[in-house]
Amino acid sequence: MSSTTFQAVNPTTGESLPGQFTDASLSEINQTVENAAMAFEAYRHTGPAARAEFLERIAAEIEALGDELLERCHQETGLPMGRLQGERGRTANQLRLFAKVVREGSWVDARIDPAQPDRQPLPRADIRHMQIALGPVVVFGASNFPLAFSTAGGDTAAALAAGCPVVVKGHPAHPGTHSLVAGAILKAIEATGMPEGTFGSVQGRAIEVGKALVMHPQIKAVGFTGSFRGGTAIFEYANSRPEPIPVFAEMGSTNPVFILPGALKERGAAIADGLAASLNLGVGQFCTNPGLSFLPDEPGKDAFLQTLEERIGETGAGTMLTAGIKAAYDKGIERLAGTDSVRNLAGGAAAKGDFQAQTAVFRTTTEVFLAEESLEEEVFGPSGIVVESGSREQLLASARRLKGHLTATVHGTEADLIEYRELFDILEKKVGRIIVNGFPTGVEVCHSMVHGGPYPATTATQSTSVGTTAIRRFVRPVCYQDLPQALLPDALKDNNPLGIWRLVDGQFTQAAL
Amino acid sequence: MSSTTFQAVNPTTGESLPGQFTDASLSEINQTVENAAMAFEAYRHTGPAARAEFLERIAAEIEALGDELLERCHQETGLPMGRLQGERGRTANQLRLFAKVVREGSWVDARIDPAQPDRQPLPRADIRHMQIALGPVVVFGASNFPLAFSTAGGDTAAALAAGCPVVVKGHPAHPGTHSLVAGAILKAIEATGMPEGTFGSVQGRAIEVGKALVMHPQIKAVGFTGSFRGGTAIFEYANSRPEPIPVFAEMGSTNPVFILPGALKERGAAIADGLAASLNLGVGQFCTNPGLSFLPDEPGKDAFLQTLEERIGETGAGTMLTAGIKAAYDKGIERLAGTDSVRNLAGGAAAKGDFQAQTAVFRTTTEVFLAEESLEEEVFGPSGIVVESGSREQLLASARRLKGHLTATVHGTEADLIEYRELFDILEKKVGRIIVNGFPTGVEVCHSMVHGGPYPATTATQSTSVGTTAIRRFVRPVCYQDLPQALLPDALKDNNPLGIWRLVDGQFTQAAL
Repeated sequence: MSSTTFQAVNPTTGESLPGQFTDASLSEINQTVENAAMAFEAYRHTGPAARAEFLERIAAEIEALGDELLERCHQETGLPMGRLQGERGRTANQLRLFAKVVREGSWVDARIDPAQPDRQPLPRADIRHMQIALGPVVVFGASNFPLAFSTAGGDTAAALAAGCPVVVKGHPAHPGTHSLVAGAILKAIEATGMPEGTFGSVQGRAIEVGKALVMHPQIKAVGFTGSFRGGTAIFEYANSRPEPIPVFAEMGSTNPVFILPGALKERGAAIADGLAASLNLGVGQFCTNPGLSFLPDEPGKDAFLQTLEERIGETGAGTMLTAGIKAAYDKGIERLAGTDSVRNLAGGAAAKGDFQAQTAVFRTTTEVFLAEESLEEEVFGPSGIVVESGSREQLLASARRLKGHLTATVHGTEADLIEYRELFDILEKKVGRIIVNGFPTGVEVCHSMVHGGPYPATTATQSTSVGTTAIRRFVRPVCYQDLPQALLPDALKDNNPLGIWRLVDGQFTQAAL
Repeated sequence: MSSTTFQAVNPTTGESLPGQFTDASLSEINQTVENAAMAFEAYRHTGPAARAEFLERIAAEIEALGDELLERCHQETGLPMGRLQGERGRTANQLRLFAKVVREGSWVDARIDPAQPDRQPLPRADIRHMQIALGPVVVFGASNFPLAFSTAGGDTAAALAAGCPVVVKGHPAHPGTHSLVAGAILKAIEATGMPEGTFGSVQGRAIEVGKALVMHPQIKAVGFTGSFRGGTAIFEYANSRPEPIPVFAEMGSTNPVFILPGALKERGAAIADGLAASLNLGVGQFCTNPGLSFLPDEPGKDAFLQTLEERIGETGAGTMLTAGIKAAYDKGIERLAGTDSVRNLAGGAAAKGDFQAQTAVFRTTTEVFLAEESLEEEVFGPSGIVVESGSREQLLASARRLKGHLTATVHGTEADLIEYRELFDILEKKVGRIIVNGFPTGVEVCHSMVHGGPYPATTATQSTSVGTTAIRRFVRPVCYQDLPQALLPDALKDNNPLGIWRLVDGQFTQAAL
């Protein structure tokens, strides 16, 4: 790996930003991972209170960066200050929510099957189960969420909560933001006395940097949010290791929206309004961007189409995150525009320069959608396709043809929803989240959230990258047979010193044994 | 795939058994998987009571096969009738335990974060989470557990409990046993009105049969118990699919045993007694066979070695499951015997014919063990290595060098265990189950069991193949945003009609909303 330096680029101006960053060398990468591995033993044994305080301190240190962080982030991403303020809040809240989960403690899934020395024909041993940290984890920063899915984002928070040291590969589009947040985490480590190496930072533009991290034998899992190409490359590296490791790659999605006849009639224009807003949010740079809408040939259709056309027509050109993303967007739009029987429905203001995107919405028919698989592929940015569905059967056929997505949305009256119950049975098998009468952008950080879905939306359909159950990505179960009390982890001691919920002989209880 | 027929062989006599079995053709395989896919929608919607009754009925139908099953199984495997009676009991108990789990219902991990319409700056939607069935699953029958890890074994019980149709590829060494158990499951399907296709049976000796099953696009997960070669081949097939799917392959292990000084002094001979018995159990054909023991150079060592030598010397030759397993065993023994500085310690009675195995125990030193990685590889059968460890540091160094195993066992007095606490910290990261003062053979089916571990013991270190949490192999999370009550699954309805435990706004409760 040759040493190369790079600078961040301000997408709003196209100009390079101050600050030289360098691709990490192989020896730097190895050293960072070794430090994480060294920290693992001490870090995984930190108690719930200490680990929770650490997570909370990270949140506070990020907030303490103040406007310096937001301004640098704005310069590197072009995302508006208001959005970044919100994203910073989300990032801090996420860390604090995981702190709560860690402090409460029941997430370890403690289970105790006490000994039955008199059982016939054979006695039963005392067996106790819990989840423990997997080991050092690599997290790849995402381009589109420089705070909430990057250096101290969801995967980092979940892995640290689980007891895993984290090495973050900063996204090369916002190295200054990464650097600032990494500094905040290091301050929190020092302030709360966590082991050095609990967090490590690696920068780099070269693919080799990421690959070296994934291939390092001490790394035990990978979190990634980004493109299908990037995610599948990492998945292949990880599976080709002498010891394959789990890869939690969230690779985007087209997030189908189904509009049912009653809702279309009742509020077609309002749905179009909401769809246009959701589709343009953040210049369409959301994993949950609604890129595919299915529209029945029923009253209200014209109002829907007309409103959508108007709203999209009013849309100004937006500044995308990077020139690469903008180029890929243009290529995607060209592909759609060049597909037989796919027509332009609406377009936003023309785009200028290497960073701006023009919103573009297309229309086609179910027949074309069913025949042309590529229409389901994500075009990352403010674009969408409206698929006109002649009949209920066509709409269901489109749903059945879908591959894995992060979300599916259904707009319907109460009567519609009951009538189309079958649609929900189909969608449930295709996505991680089903939304009724809303829009998929906006992913609540809470206990119930699932931000995931079957391949190709992710490489880990059994997992989520948002919400408190994301902690499960970074743990594995261990059981202890006939260990003396002194050697058992606190979570499994008879007297339940942590006061957590445990499954004792098949019954949930917070009681001591 | 050419159609080929095969017969089972009685390993005790070497003679072919009655009954012609045929490698499934590609069209038969496809049809079986299609049937499973057709059954999925109806089967996954069966309620807890109906699904539990189905599982219980399978247990009853297997028991109703009576001696016919045990005799055929004995003929096909050479396993003693007593062992097979026990294994049948275990198989039935496992199905009944999963029935209990399904009936109780909390396994779905229901979570509800109610709407907060007045939240500032943005309202919160109503979000509800649960685990749902993954889809049709392929299970490969295991050679060494013709009942408990085969047709109606652990993976089948877990997948059916989760709501997944199952296609079992019968192990070619016991096709008659597979056929009988498959018939029992089909009877249970009919008796309890489950959808046709909920269970499918495929026989075959050719690798292509298994590969075609794994590659079928409708298959969503694979359960496998067997060799490292077989497991990693399936893992590669699954990852090479257009849609990769999870593979839960349990590939064996050498199950290290650590003997600490105090215990050695106190009861070295007794530990040797137990080790010899565990090592010979089932002619050593257990995934949890203790093939690697670490022995300190402390008082009691001679008594240990002498007793082990005596007990092994008294061991008769045992009949292995198949000629292929016996040939691989002999090759493994040759490899050990041919390794520099590895010496014979003890041997059982000489083996005759193509199926018998001679028990063989070797001894070597820590230096040799640390230098020669292959000594850690499983030799499937009644063999073991005793590694003489001069010091505490040598013993810990050996533990640190270990790769992933299913289990680790520590023999120690209370004082030993405290003194060697560090050993537990090391082992915890290497195995799925830690046993104190016992032996790893014998895997309790209960809520707390973990039968799994890091690669190469398995391809799925975050999972277990024994115990009730095995149900998690075959599910994925889905969340529902703002769905009306009528469309929500029962597990997530406000009034909690199933009476299950749910996490509501972060609090565990069985109460209605």
